[in-house]
Amino acid sequence: MDANQFRAAAHAAIDQVIDYYENISDHRVVSNVAPGYLRQLLPTEIPENGEPWDDIQKDITEKIIPGITHWQSPNFLAFFPANSTYPGILGELYSAAFTSANFNWLCSPAATELETIVLDWLCQLISLPPAYLSSSPSGGGGVIQGSASEAIVTVVVAARDRALRALSAGITDEAEKERFVDATRGKLVALCSDQSHSSTQKGCLIAGTKYRAVKVQRDLSNQNFGLKASTLRLALEAATAEGLVPFYTTVTLGTTSTCAVDDFAEIAQVAKDYPNLWIHVDAAYAGAALVCPEYKHLIAGVEAFDSFNVNMHKWLLTNFDCSCLFVKERKHLLNALSITPSYLRNEFSEKGLVTDYRDWQIPLGRRFRALKAWFVMRTYGAEGLRKHIRNCVAVGTGFYERVKARPDLFTIFTPPAFGLTVFTVNVERQGLKGRNEVTKEVYESVNADGEVFITSTVVDGNYAIRIVSGNPRIEDKHLARAFDIIVAKTEEVKKRDAHTPPIVEIQKELKGL
Amino acid sequence: MDANQFRAAAHAAIDQVIDYYENISDHRVVSNVAPGYLRQLLPTEIPENGEPWDDIQKDITEKIIPGITHWQSPNFLAFFPANSTYPGILGELYSAAFTSANFNWLCSPAATELETIVLDWLCQLISLPPAYLSSSPSGGGGVIQGSASEAIVTVVVAARDRALRALSAGITDEAEKERFVDATRGKLVALCSDQSHSSTQKGCLIAGTKYRAVKVQRDLSNQNFGLKASTLRLALEAATAEGLVPFYTTVTLGTTSTCAVDDFAEIAQVAKDYPNLWIHVDAAYAGAALVCPEYKHLIAGVEAFDSFNVNMHKWLLTNFDCSCLFVKERKHLLNALSITPSYLRNEFSEKGLVTDYRDWQIPLGRRFRALKAWFVMRTYGAEGLRKHIRNCVAVGTGFYERVKARPDLFTIFTPPAFGLTVFTVNVERQGLKGRNEVTKEVYESVNADGEVFITSTVVDGNYAIRIVSGNPRIEDKHLARAFDIIVAKTEEVKKRDAHTPPIVEIQKELKGL
Repeated sequence: MDANQFRAAAHAAIDQVIDYYENISDHRVVSNVAPGYLRQLLPTEIPENGEPWDDIQKDITEKIIPGITHWQSPNFLAFFPANSTYPGILGELYSAAFTSANFNWLCSPAATELETIVLDWLCQLISLPPAYLSSSPSGGGGVIQGSASEAIVTVVVAARDRALRALSAGITDEAEKERFVDATRGKLVALCSDQSHSSTQKGCLIAGTKYRAVKVQRDLSNQNFGLKASTLRLALEAATAEGLVPFYTTVTLGTTSTCAVDDFAEIAQVAKDYPNLWIHVDAAYAGAALVCPEYKHLIAGVEAFDSFNVNMHKWLLTNFDCSCLFVKERKHLLNALSITPSYLRNEFSEKGLVTDYRDWQIPLGRRFRALKAWFVMRTYGAEGLRKHIRNCVAVGTGFYERVKARPDLFTIFTPPAFGLTVFTVNVERQGLKGRNEVTKEVYESVNADGEVFITSTVVDGNYAIRIVSGNPRIEDKHLARAFDIIVAKTEEVKKRDAHTPPIVEIQKELKGL
Repeated sequence: MDANQFRAAAHAAIDQVIDYYENISDHRVVSNVAPGYLRQLLPTEIPENGEPWDDIQKDITEKIIPGITHWQSPNFLAFFPANSTYPGILGELYSAAFTSANFNWLCSPAATELETIVLDWLCQLISLPPAYLSSSPSGGGGVIQGSASEAIVTVVVAARDRALRALSAGITDEAEKERFVDATRGKLVALCSDQSHSSTQKGCLIAGTKYRAVKVQRDLSNQNFGLKASTLRLALEAATAEGLVPFYTTVTLGTTSTCAVDDFAEIAQVAKDYPNLWIHVDAAYAGAALVCPEYKHLIAGVEAFDSFNVNMHKWLLTNFDCSCLFVKERKHLLNALSITPSYLRNEFSEKGLVTDYRDWQIPLGRRFRALKAWFVMRTYGAEGLRKHIRNCVAVGTGFYERVKARPDLFTIFTPPAFGLTVFTVNVERQGLKGRNEVTKEVYESVNADGEVFITSTVVDGNYAIRIVSGNPRIEDKHLARAFDIIVAKTEEVKKRDAHTPPIVEIQKELKGL
């Protein structure tokens, strides 16, 4: 593909992308291909000779797009969003063009420096305390990771090493220190709310430490499932009494199931009594709302914690991957992750004049991800980002109001938060079937039709439906339609239910014959 | 940025990318900005209001490009290459447009299925044994990771868990099993050649296991620094005798310093005696050469190993990141890394009909990276990829011949391999200064000028210069020019040396005064 062929191909690709974005609602939101569909359509081996772009693009249209689930559609109301926008796409284009392994500053100084600068921009924009800035006296700063889960593995490893270093500080003999560290590693335990994301559990698997989920009860003061300081303190004391060493806790701004917010201000007090406890804030989705000052009060206390993560690639208009991790003391990442062989040395790094982000992350190489964050921030401006967040929340609240107005059909499970509504279907069945089964049936029947895509969750034994409005294209009409679909499906299930004896009853009858 | 603004911006961006690629030799290959240059040029905060694309693009030209080190330049002869090509860039464009979190099959079936298919294509193309295909009876398959280092962390964790599972298999009491595993984890040791890449050491830091480098001597049969089976066996026996448990070894096809190849066929015999030893093949760079059948003999024996990695983003024309990891038994990845909370469950995954790549890797979310690999493979075809590899090797051999033809100035350190030439400068100095210092001086002086970019290494106490010709734009003329520069610098250093008393002599004189 020479320059002219590339220009022609790229123009055709841009037109296809525009057509895809501008007409995205026309697609069935979740792909309904059968597992293995693509293998039927493609050759089993690479072609011997090169093919022209037209043939490839034809296959994108005919074979790939039918297998895409359209996360950019305003009818995608599932999980959390994964926003992508035009300026972010341009960032990816330039990032690919400027490809470099980027494992140190000299690999491409602009890649490192722009990352530090845009993360400082973001740090201020979301009102994080100045301790998380790259210029902070504590030696803080931000780094773009691939995902919130990767960020969590990174800080779990840093936390583990900080704890082991502190616990073994008094031992001077190196061999004895090694034995102590080996014997202690398996006693380290991470304690997290059972509402925190599963990636902490995975992080502990990788780091070789224990993990315990702390059962959270509904907080009657706000009707959600945030972690209270008293609950955490009891869990810390119980683990310590067992001879374990608590070393890490993820607290959450916006849990996956119900967008609960843990009690940061009170947990910050607990942190004082556990100096070896690394506290990480997982604000992967809801952290985006902090661009609006009206949410700022939620993070009171985070200056007492160690790290904070928000994904621009969820709700801040920047395509995956752009997970922004801030630490208060970068030295802990370097202590845990830095090894510098001769072929990676250079005078700038040796003198400590520059940042080598390879020591802030699991992998060595890295992409120039700051470009897309920079393009998005400049194209929208602070004002454009706030407008986007407020629109999503307003549209989400509209949906919540609709659900609330039908107490005959639905029960709000947790209060609306960050554009998320969580509810259950309150049809009551005879026999053993309960609300959970009915809610699940409605959920499955909505997704089977494929006009909208929603997800469900199980919290405290309750099966509930989650509707998230975090898409930049979302308007009230989309959620009005989603609501109508859900109501129709609910009424359908309710009607069928009234006329069908529960399966268990039928089974009993059959057995009786 | 609306659709029309995006089209205009994208066309301007495409023109800039073409101009950048077509005239890339015009740039000073390594950026010579001073640390912190960009902070002087950019605002300290996000703009309040959005800015037009023209302003952003102007800043790319004026502020970013001067801070880029041009890995795509044919004058970039350092490290290993990080190829990027037009079809790969288009892949990144579509990947961004189709943004999805992709943590399971249903997130976007095409993303998962295309990845499996193109990795099967690659597996066959590089003549890996069929056990590494997704359809193999052992349950193998490929997955795209972000980097070879990330792939190594992944397999180190899988290896650690496989070993701990096997060692604790006889223990039925769960609490006792946990104690045993905690006590044994720190006894696990990875043993690798001291020429293997540092990412295994980092992987062990992350996994909380020990790491030992095994000193490799020059192999007189081929004059390179490959790991011999006998050396590995001795190290395994020594570690076992100390009470440690060897669980993991990285063997290398093309070491970073000198592109040495470990003795796979013989090491495969050792593997039989250590069933808990996971052997991973790091073919990050040189594995690309396997697209040509003349290199196939090098991987005799890999069917006895557990995993294999080659980076399409190094020498196979696909922009970073596209690190292809193949495993013989995917169940070990799943055993070590899979945790499935309720909100990630769906019927297809539950029934085992589909692949959920989140369980094959450290992070949860992932990009649609298979697109760019597919575009590159189809655009070049097998024949185009072979032509690219053979051209790079031929050009590299031409450079080697030039160096060899000047025994007055240079000594070949290791034989030419995969386009890499490693040599030392053989000027002899009086006093304490030796060949290492002179070689380093030549190396630094070549890079200071910035017309070409080269790297150096230290092997077995020898400081040597490495020249790699892995760029798709490279021609003999580029290496002819690079050679002339190196000769000129060498003669300059030699001349200066002849007229300058060594610094130590001056210091002695000064002290004598």
